[in-house]
Amino acid sequence: MAVGNVDFPGMNKVSGIRLGTSNAGIKQTERDDILVVEMTEGTTCAGVFTQNAFCAAPVHIAKDHLQQNPRWLLVNSGNANAGTGKQGMSDATTSCASLASIVGGTESQVLPFSTGVIGENLPIEKIAAALPKAVNFLQEHGWSKAAHAIMTTDTFAKGASLIINIDGHPVTVTGISKGAGMIQPNMATMLGFVATDAKINQTLLQKCLAEAVDQSFNRITVDGDTSTNDACILMASGCSSAAEITENSGNYLSFAKAVMDVCKRLAELIVRDGEGATKLMRIRVEQAANDAEAVMVGKTIAHSPLVKTAFFASDPNWGRILAAIGRSGIEQMALDKVETYLDDVCIVKHGERADSYTEAKGQHVMNQKEILVRVVLGRGQATQEVLTCDLSYDYVRINAEYRT
Amino acid sequence: MAVGNVDFPGMNKVSGIRLGTSNAGIKQTERDDILVVEMTEGTTCAGVFTQNAFCAAPVHIAKDHLQQNPRWLLVNSGNANAGTGKQGMSDATTSCASLASIVGGTESQVLPFSTGVIGENLPIEKIAAALPKAVNFLQEHGWSKAAHAIMTTDTFAKGASLIINIDGHPVTVTGISKGAGMIQPNMATMLGFVATDAKINQTLLQKCLAEAVDQSFNRITVDGDTSTNDACILMASGCSSAAEITENSGNYLSFAKAVMDVCKRLAELIVRDGEGATKLMRIRVEQAANDAEAVMVGKTIAHSPLVKTAFFASDPNWGRILAAIGRSGIEQMALDKVETYLDDVCIVKHGERADSYTEAKGQHVMNQKEILVRVVLGRGQATQEVLTCDLSYDYVRINAEYRT
Repeated sequence: MAVGNVDFPGMNKVSGIRLGTSNAGIKQTERDDILVVEMTEGTTCAGVFTQNAFCAAPVHIAKDHLQQNPRWLLVNSGNANAGTGKQGMSDATTSCASLASIVGGTESQVLPFSTGVIGENLPIEKIAAALPKAVNFLQEHGWSKAAHAIMTTDTFAKGASLIINIDGHPVTVTGISKGAGMIQPNMATMLGFVATDAKINQTLLQKCLAEAVDQSFNRITVDGDTSTNDACILMASGCSSAAEITENSGNYLSFAKAVMDVCKRLAELIVRDGEGATKLMRIRVEQAANDAEAVMVGKTIAHSPLVKTAFFASDPNWGRILAAIGRSGIEQMALDKVETYLDDVCIVKHGERADSYTEAKGQHVMNQKEILVRVVLGRGQATQEVLTCDLSYDYVRINAEYRT
Repeated sequence: MAVGNVDFPGMNKVSGIRLGTSNAGIKQTERDDILVVEMTEGTTCAGVFTQNAFCAAPVHIAKDHLQQNPRWLLVNSGNANAGTGKQGMSDATTSCASLASIVGGTESQVLPFSTGVIGENLPIEKIAAALPKAVNFLQEHGWSKAAHAIMTTDTFAKGASLIINIDGHPVTVTGISKGAGMIQPNMATMLGFVATDAKINQTLLQKCLAEAVDQSFNRITVDGDTSTNDACILMASGCSSAAEITENSGNYLSFAKAVMDVCKRLAELIVRDGEGATKLMRIRVEQAANDAEAVMVGKTIAHSPLVKTAFFASDPNWGRILAAIGRSGIEQMALDKVETYLDDVCIVKHGERADSYTEAKGQHVMNQKEILVRVVLGRGQATQEVLTCDLSYDYVRINAEYRT
């Protein structure tokens, strides 16, 4: 039940980055569930990871290996290798070693990622058996197959790609993501892999990724549940003919915007694939005292089951939005300054129903598939957006049937 | 779809407290929707109210009138008089004046309470027309009718009553509550009215109520949405033959426990009537560093849509519970100390699946209607309980169809 246009886009290959997939039969036998990504020598690599205290074994290992000039990513779907204790750590390391032995690298040059069921041990023999085929298929045009291989409850593959111009030289930014439930990323979404052929040092690359993730994956929520396995990786192969991108340069701003745009699209696609979603809500909080306050109000609205079910029913139930704003935790809010809009229709002015509001106007907006909820707090200059989806029967069905 | 035994109990009358109901046709014509409570002269009265910044007009007025020795409560269901601005304040005051003129009191001696749809003006003429009948019916045995008159989406009336012995004299504590959705009380639930014939001064009564509410209504959640109209009132008529209850006395402890027990039962009944609920989950967090931390972990689990849908499906999906604990915001949690139990079945030990755990054992507990989720943090001595219910198709149906 994807919301809006979610066609998989044409993906520009990234010179120096090759991808290969295969089927290990971890949870299903029909779709590839293993992805190997090879980064050419000299690639810099940045990563952000879940802040869930019970982060999965592969998250621990990937954080560690990230500091050791990694050359490969090893991703599996169908099993999260989370809540698996010492055995999980050992299994993640063993899988890294399996790949290393095939490609001629070292265990510490492999970053592992897992997504799927929590609490079951990783089938390391199945994975080892599937690796040679994935390595054999490594190619720069492997993005679409890669996007499919990392899916779990996703109903479509998610990709974004663009080419920018740096001093007359093309620089590509291409990425994929997965996720549909257990989505309130705190540092990163379930899984996002973004690559570029730009030349850029690791420190600056990490800064660029952190900023992009903060405004993209960290601004979406489906159900408020932060996963144990969230990770987002940004790889820079340096294969572009463009000069190295340096801090505080105009080129950095262009590059950072491209990374941000790709991350925002990948994050938005996750909300459009939100479990059971029938509507996309963009909640923009304006005139907040600061960014944190704007995000707090936005997320309180986005997490309210009452607001989410009202949107599912196309019911312009503005009282529920107002109640969510009121419980969001802002101290000493000047209610008479609060305004709320559904797209251009003002529903609340001076903290109460706007005189100009009619049920017909509200209903007209509510019938749309994509709705902007705009909250004006009248407290300052900060604006932040949070993206979410509605709460439908199908969310309950999917999560009552599926073992995360 | 009430969970467990929710039969309306025998209610002990409280000497000095009379209740009368009538039908004003605010939203429905078949059931009484107006409740008037009369407190005999000399009754002390304590109250706690929602902390939602957009609290409703009657909440503002009731807070104000509470300081002026109130003698009457005026409650209506079907309309919350919230988000109604200046008109709402005027309407609430007018209704108080209408009742005062009938009973021969002053406007400021009436506490108003409203529950129902947000954002529509209160039909003050309908209410005024229905008041004489409610006043005419005032009687000490009016508790059952009162409990029915304050219902909105509730599927059953909620009451609790007990008699304790103070130095050989009986003291009664009797109360009613309402609520099923928009339930994560912050100070009090939707509406709770508790009365006693004890003699106790207002300051001590307020302290007693605040403590009781903190451990009862403030420890339940259905959907995490704090209402704009929450209020809980404790009335002490002083008509009992028992001596006045004074601070730091054994009698105070007995009395406070009775008030606590009544409030806990009234709060639990709200969860048992949670919108669409099929299961009751009692989430007990033990060995937390402090009470706030225990509540934080309990509420994170209780609010997780993934946990709630797993319980609806009777799926022992402990990974979702672990993920919720992990994202609850505790700094530097020692994962290897964390244990989790479903009733007596240990599912997580040392931060991972317990060796003794089997799916069959977990499934056995999950098939029950009432389940204790016990989380042991290994960080300190604090224990707190949070009550919640599961998330079912019917929650979505009810809230997609009902205009709060």
